[in-house]
Amino acid sequence: MKKLSILGSTGSIGEQTLSIVENFSDRFQVVALGAGRNIDLLRKQITQFRPRIVSVLTEELARALSGQLHDPPEIVHGIEGLIQIATLEEVDMVVSALVGAIGLVPTLSAIKARKQIALANKESLVMGGKIVMEEARRERVDILPVDSEHCAIFQSMVGHSKKDVHRIILTASGGPFLHYPIEKLRDVLPAEALKHPRWKMGRKVTIDSATLMNKGLELIEARWLFDLEPSQLGILIHPQSIVHSLVELKDGSVLAQLSPTDMKIPIQYALTYPERENTRLPSLGLSQIKSLEFLDVEEEKFPLVRLAFRALKEGKSIPVALNAANEVVVEAFLKREIKFSEISVLVSEAVDNHQKREVKSLEDILEVDSDTRVQTRNIMKKRL
Amino acid sequence: MKKLSILGSTGSIGEQTLSIVENFSDRFQVVALGAGRNIDLLRKQITQFRPRIVSVLTEELARALSGQLHDPPEIVHGIEGLIQIATLEEVDMVVSALVGAIGLVPTLSAIKARKQIALANKESLVMGGKIVMEEARRERVDILPVDSEHCAIFQSMVGHSKKDVHRIILTASGGPFLHYPIEKLRDVLPAEALKHPRWKMGRKVTIDSATLMNKGLELIEARWLFDLEPSQLGILIHPQSIVHSLVELKDGSVLAQLSPTDMKIPIQYALTYPERENTRLPSLGLSQIKSLEFLDVEEEKFPLVRLAFRALKEGKSIPVALNAANEVVVEAFLKREIKFSEISVLVSEAVDNHQKREVKSLEDILEVDSDTRVQTRNIMKKRL
Repeated sequence: MKKLSILGSTGSIGEQTLSIVENFSDRFQVVALGAGRNIDLLRKQITQFRPRIVSVLTEELARALSGQLHDPPEIVHGIEGLIQIATLEEVDMVVSALVGAIGLVPTLSAIKARKQIALANKESLVMGGKIVMEEARRERVDILPVDSEHCAIFQSMVGHSKKDVHRIILTASGGPFLHYPIEKLRDVLPAEALKHPRWKMGRKVTIDSATLMNKGLELIEARWLFDLEPSQLGILIHPQSIVHSLVELKDGSVLAQLSPTDMKIPIQYALTYPERENTRLPSLGLSQIKSLEFLDVEEEKFPLVRLAFRALKEGKSIPVALNAANEVVVEAFLKREIKFSEISVLVSEAVDNHQKREVKSLEDILEVDSDTRVQTRNIMKKRL
Repeated sequence: MKKLSILGSTGSIGEQTLSIVENFSDRFQVVALGAGRNIDLLRKQITQFRPRIVSVLTEELARALSGQLHDPPEIVHGIEGLIQIATLEEVDMVVSALVGAIGLVPTLSAIKARKQIALANKESLVMGGKIVMEEARRERVDILPVDSEHCAIFQSMVGHSKKDVHRIILTASGGPFLHYPIEKLRDVLPAEALKHPRWKMGRKVTIDSATLMNKGLELIEARWLFDLEPSQLGILIHPQSIVHSLVELKDGSVLAQLSPTDMKIPIQYALTYPERENTRLPSLGLSQIKSLEFLDVEEEKFPLVRLAFRALKEGKSIPVALNAANEVVVEAFLKREIKFSEISVLVSEAVDNHQKREVKSLEDILEVDSDTRVQTRNIMKKRL
């Protein structure tokens, strides 16, 4: 029985993780759940999965939740609450599925507590890649990627030697605006940007998929996860989202993982690794799909991709600043405070304004994150 | 230094193997070469690679070759000659690249002599799969597939568990007649059938690719090589020949190997396995190729595929008979004795006439092979 703590249980990945747990109740037991503000859904999850302890965002939410349950579990809150449920003695694996920068500290705590990690929170590696991976190596902790792209790379590399890897190519669906003329992008509304053609995901990730920033963050994530040089990473647009990524080896062989577009596969693989279980999904019918297309990225149309490649190469504090600026700006777009085309302009300006520096500790990272958020808000205020 | 004996050195695979040996003269040494009738090319190979011993088809050819060389190596001949060079004490790896049924006995001898095998001769497994693989397991001999499809499956399965394999899909380019109307196939000439759109291969294999019999033989080969049930094998047409085959695992993940259409990659991988070396081929440019297509096989148009699936399921002596009948009939087509559309008719008739029996030994197999050849020639005589 693998004992799980699920950080971000009310998000898209969290919910799908719980549906897998439901299918394999003989393999997995939920010890802890961590949510944010969605205590209605969390309450249902508590009733069904009976965790010993849960964490919510604030003390008020903790009190409210407690009042709604006859026999409540232990309820903790805030970042301390997340750290507590990420480091519980009896937990074997932490599913790190929080969205955004808030995932870094609990994930790092879980690694230090020698928990196996199923990692969906890409910010842990975008912001803290070097520190997080060093810690994971030191503590001999498996980091099992839940992102479909990184899971594809991971599966393709199993059994093959890292020294034979020439480069890795992340595939991107291209999002809802792949075939939009660049002029039309300016006035896109949140509702349009939230309609992803292939994947059902949370709001923040869906907007990042529309700007292709998501792929940029995944590049940086992959660099650390697979210990590669920035020059070994590339992106290809693949609208069908069937080939989830590719690994090119030095003899010209390319290994790839394909599957139906369903997050159940990477999540379940992370949970059951190194074993596999049936997902009961229909087989991939390539002759029904007929054609798999591949295109280069139009970087003029998706300038955040170029910015992410720059952050990948320059390193140090730049990826942290890029991520923080993007979180602030996407939030403003979702509140309809700025236009879609302004996302990349504002994020670029914030990164340009940022003074590159060394980040040697968690404290350094969190300081860059917080400084950049303030600066980005100032840039937005000046503009509006 | 890996010491090689190359059976079929003057064929397409043999020549490409030697060009790899030339590139890595510090890794490989040619101890023996086995050819058929092409002593002109063999003489050049002897001069360049200086084998200690060579084998040719007949005693006359041996004498002729000897007379053409100042300082000839030891020259042996016939099936005994092939067995001798397949079992030399100092050889580490035998490259089994003979075309047709003649490859079985030398390959089996090499396995019994505990030589690592780079296997291009698919007939060894089509005819003797059970015996050959049992012997390989007993002697703990690696059989490294050189066929691009089997090499793709082998690479995709490295590091993954056989018990997790749901099925394997061999890809087929579809050959030169993929988009020909079925009526037009009747009067196809050898010269047309020999124009393969993707691969440069020997004459026999190229005709088998035009009828898709090649894929049928590969199905049977894969069944034994990867120890699968007949129901676990399928075929997909993939005209671009970039995805060389696919392995579907039980959770719905599909692993695949892709590469430029160049036999150098699978041959070199078999030679250097488990290591890899640079092939200096250009990277696979998927955005230049743009689209990878997949279609189901039209079995009415390519009836030998259906016949191969039947042979795969029925087993026993049927695959041996199928292979023998096909060799005889294809030879007749290449000599323009029969029409293209008669290939499948005659092979089917020969297999229908064949009395299915157990094949428990090499002798049983060779008897079925030889009986079927006689019967097939009789069927052809009656028809013509």
